[in-house]
Amino acid sequence: MDNYKSLKEEAFEANLEIPKRNLAIYTWGNVSAFDPDKGVFAIKPSGVAYDKLTPSSMVVVDLDGKKADGKLNPSSDTETHRILYLDFSSRKKGGVRGITHTHSPYATAWAQARRPVPVFGTTHADYGAGPVPCTAYLDEEAVKNNYELETGNLIVETFRAGNIDPLFMPMALAAGHGPFTWGKNAAEAVYHAAVLEEICKIGCFTLLLSPDAQTLPAHIIRKHWERKHGPEASYGQKG
Amino acid sequence: MDNYKSLKEEAFEANLEIPKRNLAIYTWGNVSAFDPDKGVFAIKPSGVAYDKLTPSSMVVVDLDGKKADGKLNPSSDTETHRILYLDFSSRKKGGVRGITHTHSPYATAWAQARRPVPVFGTTHADYGAGPVPCTAYLDEEAVKNNYELETGNLIVETFRAGNIDPLFMPMALAAGHGPFTWGKNAAEAVYHAAVLEEICKIGCFTLLLSPDAQTLPAHIIRKHWERKHGPEASYGQKG
Amino acid sequence: MDNYKSLKEEAFEANLEIPKRNLAIYTWGNVSAFDPDKGVFAIKPSGVAYDKLTPSSMVVVDLDGKKADGKLNPSSDTETHRILYLDFSSRKKGGVRGITHTHSPYATAWAQARRPVPVFGTTHADYGAGPVPCTAYLDEEAVKNNYELETGNLIVETFRAGNIDPLFMPMALAAGHGPFTWGKNAAEAVYHAAVLEEICKIGCFTLLLSPDAQTLPAHIIRKHWERKHGPEASYGQKG
Amino acid sequence: MDNYKSLKEEAFEANLEIPKRNLAIYTWGNVSAFDPDKGVFAIKPSGVAYDKLTPSSMVVVDLDGKKADGKLNPSSDTETHRILYLDFSSRKKGGVRGITHTHSPYATAWAQARRPVPVFGTTHADYGAGPVPCTAYLDEEAVKNNYELETGNLIVETFRAGNIDPLFMPMALAAGHGPFTWGKNAAEAVYHAAVLEEICKIGCFTLLLSPDAQTLPAHIIRKHWERKHGPEASYGQKG
Repeated sequence: MDNYKSLKEEAFEANLEIPKRNLAIYTWGNVSAFDPDKGVFAIKPSGVAYDKLTPSSMVVVDLDGKKADGKLNPSSDTETHRILYLDFSSRKKGGVRGITHTHSPYATAWAQARRPVPVFGTTHADYGAGPVPCTAYLDEEAVKNNYELETGNLIVETFRAGNIDPLFMPMALAAGHGPFTWGKNAAEAVYHAAVLEEICKIGCFTLLLSPDAQTLPAHIIRKHWERKHGPEASYGQKG
Repeated sequence: MDNYKSLKEEAFEANLEIPKRNLAIYTWGNVSAFDPDKGVFAIKPSGVAYDKLTPSSMVVVDLDGKKADGKLNPSSDTETHRILYLDFSSRKKGGVRGITHTHSPYATAWAQARRPVPVFGTTHADYGAGPVPCTAYLDEEAVKNNYELETGNLIVETFRAGNIDPLFMPMALAAGHGPFTWGKNAAEAVYHAAVLEEICKIGCFTLLLSPDAQTLPAHIIRKHWERKHGPEASYGQKG
Repeated sequence: MDNYKSLKEEAFEANLEIPKRNLAIYTWGNVSAFDPDKGVFAIKPSGVAYDKLTPSSMVVVDLDGKKADGKLNPSSDTETHRILYLDFSSRKKGGVRGITHTHSPYATAWAQARRPVPVFGTTHADYGAGPVPCTAYLDEEAVKNNYELETGNLIVETFRAGNIDPLFMPMALAAGHGPFTWGKNAAEAVYHAAVLEEICKIGCFTLLLSPDAQTLPAHIIRKHWERKHGPEASYGQKG
Repeated sequence: MDNYKSLKEEAFEANLEIPKRNLAIYTWGNVSAFDPDKGVFAIKPSGVAYDKLTPSSMVVVDLDGKKADGKLNPSSDTETHRILYLDFSSRKKGGVRGITHTHSPYATAWAQARRPVPVFGTTHADYGAGPVPCTAYLDEEAVKNNYELETGNLIVETFRAGNIDPLFMPMALAAGHGPFTWGKNAAEAVYHAAVLEEICKIGCFTLLLSPDAQTLPAHIIRKHWERKHGPEASYGQKG
């Protein structure tokens, strides 16, 4: 009997969205799904093409970084996922249950330009009430110590320093690297990766048209955020 | 018996054009179809993916904003559609019978840059003899009052202030938000959304090549408009 | 018996390449095929979608502009095609036998920016040893007289004034309008439309990377042209 | 019996990746596969569309440039491939066994802008620890002598002058021409062509967002390179 069957299926299905949504070529992206009760997450195996993935090829890792299930090596970004779950999944905060990392071209361009993505419009405000944060570069010490783990730490610190709640801003850029996004499950994490790519594409052309483009006024940002996320959210269908 | 069967089918078919023409990812766009005799329009339900839509899932709303038919919540942009029908569908004006809203990337970039789209070429002049208008931002009062309704009012006022006839310019940009387009039926509304996206894409690269690109001379704009729309229109096949 | 059967089939097949190669949305492009012995060309009917075309829907027009065959109205750009055949198809010159017009986005951006496309690289030099010419705007008199015919005249004059042989440069930009391309048959005409679009796309990003990008040195331009077109052409398969 | 059967199949399969990965329109790219024991390489025939290729249409050429097998003319870039194999395939160096040339749009834009591609991010560092080199233009003498052969020589000299090991940087730009990439087999060569195109696309938009974008710090470049290529590489699955 497989204790992690549904978790691995969730991760598998979400990883298939990466090529379907054109978020990465070859093997340049990974999604994980987290089970807070078991304290483990299922993640894409490293370097395996999406069309070779199966639910059983997913690798299950616990919050100490030990492999709990699976034959293959987990994604090389596993330590980054782990650190983000450790900090962003606590019940008090409500809970990140899925994480996605890709090298989607427009989001990666913003990460390489090391510019936080301003809230240029309501497309963005529907998903977060402030800029998408961009980290600093990792310093030499951190890279030597444990590069992937420290990438996670740097994202966590960037959110803490900016007083940003990860449940209100499910997207981040790692400077010179690319986007990390998360959500209440693996499907939402990869959904946010596609959202961020589209926001970043629109943002590129906004700046081409108007290099001094303004941020959306605060009262419109707030309205759009509340329309989708506040206690009186009106978007979509209720349970 | 379903009084709104054909109206819902018209709206359903037009909504399917949104993903087919790559005008929105996920649920980021909606089309409505208007019946001036019954005084109602059928619109996409809020937050439902295009591949889950059926004709019967369309929501029918009357010009007072009351739901006339359908089980789901209508699009969160319903009030904007309603205001546009109230002002743009009158018989005297000839009649808007379909409206589309998307977040298509190039049109949204122009809306975020808050630049009306100049008539750089005949591609544009075939559909409108002047720039595609861009509204101002909604002020705080309007957003508090009724954001979606006031978005409609602002578009109407922008056309009135510019002395622009919506039947001669079927496209508008809501600042910091995205495009709204319309037509003599739902199919034409979404057709104009695709036309605007292509015009906005070409316009981006026109400005990349020539930041001071000129507007097409008035005599060519007029010619192209008349070729397709004037009393001596020569384009296409006659009834 | 249909005298124009194969000519209409040639035009039909070439028109289908327009959507296949993403050179136009909806009905924004047309191809014609010329028969110099009969003195007629077959062209796309006006305003008909590509997926509704059939060989028998093609319209045959003679060099005086009179319809020789077909039930539908020919493309609104028919007079431009006619003038180009009158000047570019003479035996002395060797012979243009197909013409294509589209609003493909990157080529149209160059036409709207009114910039001839410089020979930035060998991709371009393989098809023409000089810049792709761009006309001036048509003046008011010409537009009043016969817009489409004068568009053809302006292209012819642009080539004459620049001492450019249309058989050595099968592509042109009509200012504020879009690309016209031609070839030894309809298939080559639309092939050149796709080539021009790709050259124009690459050229846009060349200028983004280097606003002062240089033209390829003359000795490399000459070499590439001769490799494909000179008496000692080495590209492709003989016989 | 066909001595070159598997080599031609390897080249055939890799050439099919060119249209599948959108690396060239029509016939604008070619891949070859090298057999160091036989001292020959199989390459795409010149000017043949990808959907007309068969394994038996591949042309086999030896390191003196003599055709060893095949009925068709080899790619017009054959001499460039040959020179690169002569210099880059020696056992001491470890061995290039496949080469790809395309005119993919973003990589070609960088080649036309004649800018080496800086290591803006980890996407790039995963494949090479320094910029993607760009050659100078070939001078008149070299073009007259043997254009394609001298293109190969210029790439080799560019690597030698920059003290760059082709096994550590599998990608190059020929100024005003386009990308050449290579790998341990034909499949890896075309994989690197797709990687370079994506890096060049991301780099274009990085510069749009930040014209003075910095290169990734050396300690991060080194880390990413070692993660995938060093003796302690941790990426992927081990044999």
